[in-house]
Amino acid sequence: MDVRDYIDSNARVFFDQLKAWLAIPSVSADPGHHGDVRSSAQWLAGHLAATGFPTVEIWDTGQASSPGQPAVFAHWPAQDPAAPTVLVYGHHDVQPVEPLDEWHAPPFEPVERDGQLLGRGASDDKGQVLLHTLGLRACLAASAAGAPPVSLKLLIEGEEESGSPHFADLLRSRADRLSCDVIVISDTTMWAADVPSMCTGMRGLIDAQIDLRGADTDVHSGSFGGGVPNPLHALATLLAGLHDDQGRVTLPGFYDAVLPLTDAERALFARLPFDEKAWLADAGDSQATAGEAGYTTLERVWARPTAEVNGLWGGHTGPGAKTIVPSQGHAKVSFRLVANQEPADIAVALREYVAARTPPGIEATVTFGGPGVRPAFSPLHSPGVQAAKRAMERAFGREVLFTREGGSGPEADLADILGAPLVFVAVGLDEDRIHAPNEKVEMTLLLRGAEAVAYLWEDLAADPAGITATR
Amino acid sequence: MDVRDYIDSNARVFFDQLKAWLAIPSVSADPGHHGDVRSSAQWLAGHLAATGFPTVEIWDTGQASSPGQPAVFAHWPAQDPAAPTVLVYGHHDVQPVEPLDEWHAPPFEPVERDGQLLGRGASDDKGQVLLHTLGLRACLAASAAGAPPVSLKLLIEGEEESGSPHFADLLRSRADRLSCDVIVISDTTMWAADVPSMCTGMRGLIDAQIDLRGADTDVHSGSFGGGVPNPLHALATLLAGLHDDQGRVTLPGFYDAVLPLTDAERALFARLPFDEKAWLADAGDSQATAGEAGYTTLERVWARPTAEVNGLWGGHTGPGAKTIVPSQGHAKVSFRLVANQEPADIAVALREYVAARTPPGIEATVTFGGPGVRPAFSPLHSPGVQAAKRAMERAFGREVLFTREGGSGPEADLADILGAPLVFVAVGLDEDRIHAPNEKVEMTLLLRGAEAVAYLWEDLAADPAGITATR
Repeated sequence: MDVRDYIDSNARVFFDQLKAWLAIPSVSADPGHHGDVRSSAQWLAGHLAATGFPTVEIWDTGQASSPGQPAVFAHWPAQDPAAPTVLVYGHHDVQPVEPLDEWHAPPFEPVERDGQLLGRGASDDKGQVLLHTLGLRACLAASAAGAPPVSLKLLIEGEEESGSPHFADLLRSRADRLSCDVIVISDTTMWAADVPSMCTGMRGLIDAQIDLRGADTDVHSGSFGGGVPNPLHALATLLAGLHDDQGRVTLPGFYDAVLPLTDAERALFARLPFDEKAWLADAGDSQATAGEAGYTTLERVWARPTAEVNGLWGGHTGPGAKTIVPSQGHAKVSFRLVANQEPADIAVALREYVAARTPPGIEATVTFGGPGVRPAFSPLHSPGVQAAKRAMERAFGREVLFTREGGSGPEADLADILGAPLVFVAVGLDEDRIHAPNEKVEMTLLLRGAEAVAYLWEDLAADPAGITATR
Repeated sequence: MDVRDYIDSNARVFFDQLKAWLAIPSVSADPGHHGDVRSSAQWLAGHLAATGFPTVEIWDTGQASSPGQPAVFAHWPAQDPAAPTVLVYGHHDVQPVEPLDEWHAPPFEPVERDGQLLGRGASDDKGQVLLHTLGLRACLAASAAGAPPVSLKLLIEGEEESGSPHFADLLRSRADRLSCDVIVISDTTMWAADVPSMCTGMRGLIDAQIDLRGADTDVHSGSFGGGVPNPLHALATLLAGLHDDQGRVTLPGFYDAVLPLTDAERALFARLPFDEKAWLADAGDSQATAGEAGYTTLERVWARPTAEVNGLWGGHTGPGAKTIVPSQGHAKVSFRLVANQEPADIAVALREYVAARTPPGIEATVTFGGPGVRPAFSPLHSPGVQAAKRAMERAFGREVLFTREGGSGPEADLADILGAPLVFVAVGLDEDRIHAPNEKVEMTLLLRGAEAVAYLWEDLAADPAGITATR
């Protein structure tokens, strides 16, 4: 029985299993659901053991002072000790479901309708985690082997939707167990059901609050206006100066480390059927595109770094007028980063920028929200990406294009801490309404995803030197 | 008996009368004290009648839908029908007294201490109103006349500390009764007890709220950041652009109507003993001066127009980071104006400026708080100012210098609606703690003020053609 036959004939069982898992409301952001997050981990552990993984463990995260939600680890070694080791990353926690009254069916009572499976977590990320066990069983069935062709590890997190607060610590403390040659991420999307694609990178992030202070108190603008510095003028000047008239970020050295987009990747992006009107509608009905000169919209949001003012406040913000020179101004800013920018370097540059642009009589402080998130990037011609492309193309019967992801996640931690390249294999769609009411997944895409990973394990096993050489 | 002898021998009675009036808590901003505001008007009406004014009236203000606090009007015609008519403006309402625990004595139980009279309203403005009746009596006693040398009108407002909401309407509806050749304002300050001075102008004001809107909702900065316009960037650019690098306001035509400071006025300002360090301390411990290049601090805050951002807000302003492109940004701005700028012209210029600088995809609205306040200005060499200068110099025995007032008030309405020039005759000091706990007035300054107005009436009567020619 070949891979596809196995998958098609086991689809019914697979979807019933997924629905059982989706019924567990593993909302990690809600302390009232932390018991459910543990039940979800236990369900998955049972499922992985039943699949045949000889090692299945539930890993608690955090410490007593800051307890976390459990991750699930499983390992099934290959028979051939020379086979490469693959670590699959996903998560079993889900987003909150509010506003509940916008769901057409209860979010934790999954239903099938017109080839879609609806329910919280169907696409993000339980469906995309579970396709791995189906794919693995198909791989085993097709080869009639007693073990996978690659040494397969799974790490399925329980806090991704809560910002993965303990994830880096978990990776560091379990680095030995998690060692691998390549990391497969199944938590993103492809371009469209009929345009299979692979993500090759995510942007990094660093955020800060800028606080400016002038006088000790607000002062009367009649008595003092025009004679003393106004921190809101300084703030506006500082924030306005973050971009030049080409939409480029002006922090000193901001672009120094940026890995330029290659002509090949730009050409591949350009082949994606991009509907700007629909994209603007998704962007809260934005009325125009904007951004760095010389780049397309997709390039801007996927592969170019940004500076964004996320919030600002100061002075009188209530009804009516108050003729003051305010004493303070505040802004929250964040920077999306791309390979190979380092959050720590950008932090230094921001401090320098603010210090250089703070006028006399104004005191400025810059406070960072944390160390930031590194960008993640897998070159198009890296062996892992090429192997996954071949596997996806075999499963979908079409050319696979490339995308990136403009957001930021724990993926870069995986690559950095474990020292292995990332490969994004995912079959979610942007229209899956993840994080929103009526989340769904296309059922056939889950099956094609299972097929793709089955082929991928075979492909990676066929050329172990290719992938291990990239470490 | 000459003017000074009369005043000195009646000082005790005068201060006792003032203390009785100060004991009435006429806080116009507090509805709980509106009965006291009326009592204060009644007290003043009785005092003016007792002084000899043949016409004394309490004028209600506002309408049934928006009732106001009462003003007091009094008129004592000169015997000579060719004598000029003078209108004295002041107010009998007072500021709130909070924080009460910072007062060394109860605010409405006035006490005398070391030549100072302490109590709410002592300087702002009851003391400066009452000096007019003492001055008038002295004038009458010195000339042994049965009527003042000028036709004297008093209009003492009851809502000045609440923003004079009904004052312009009152002036318009009573313009015939209030017609005059010159308006004497006794509601400002002089430079110092030993540096008598006269204010010659106040700045005007117009305020607005600027609202910028991008997308319909905040959008995720990972998915859309760098590709859609951010209204906070637009807001920062717009506000930062309000000033050029010389601190000049960039609104189109902003300075076109500005009456330049004369060399003579600048030279007189420069003779004032200005202590920048003390001024900065008063300015909420500001750490530096700032403003329009080419002007001194006093010139900047008294005689140059400004643009001030009074408040701004938008996006995420709570704890922590939120990686959004916000949908909206807001700012409150105000412009202090000088002669001969028109608030309506500045409003047009602001609308033009915002429209020209709003980038594609952002929608901007500008909402004005009202029609604004016109600047007031009395040229140094106008007959009224020169007459008052002579009278002040005679009373104080020193040269009188000139100041201006950076704030804005209903004075310009008086000049505009009644069509008469303003003359500021006042003996308050900046250190009188008006609007603050422990308000006080220097008792000898009130007496010298009374003396000055007595001389002023004589002076104006001696040259009626001079003042009436300026109308």
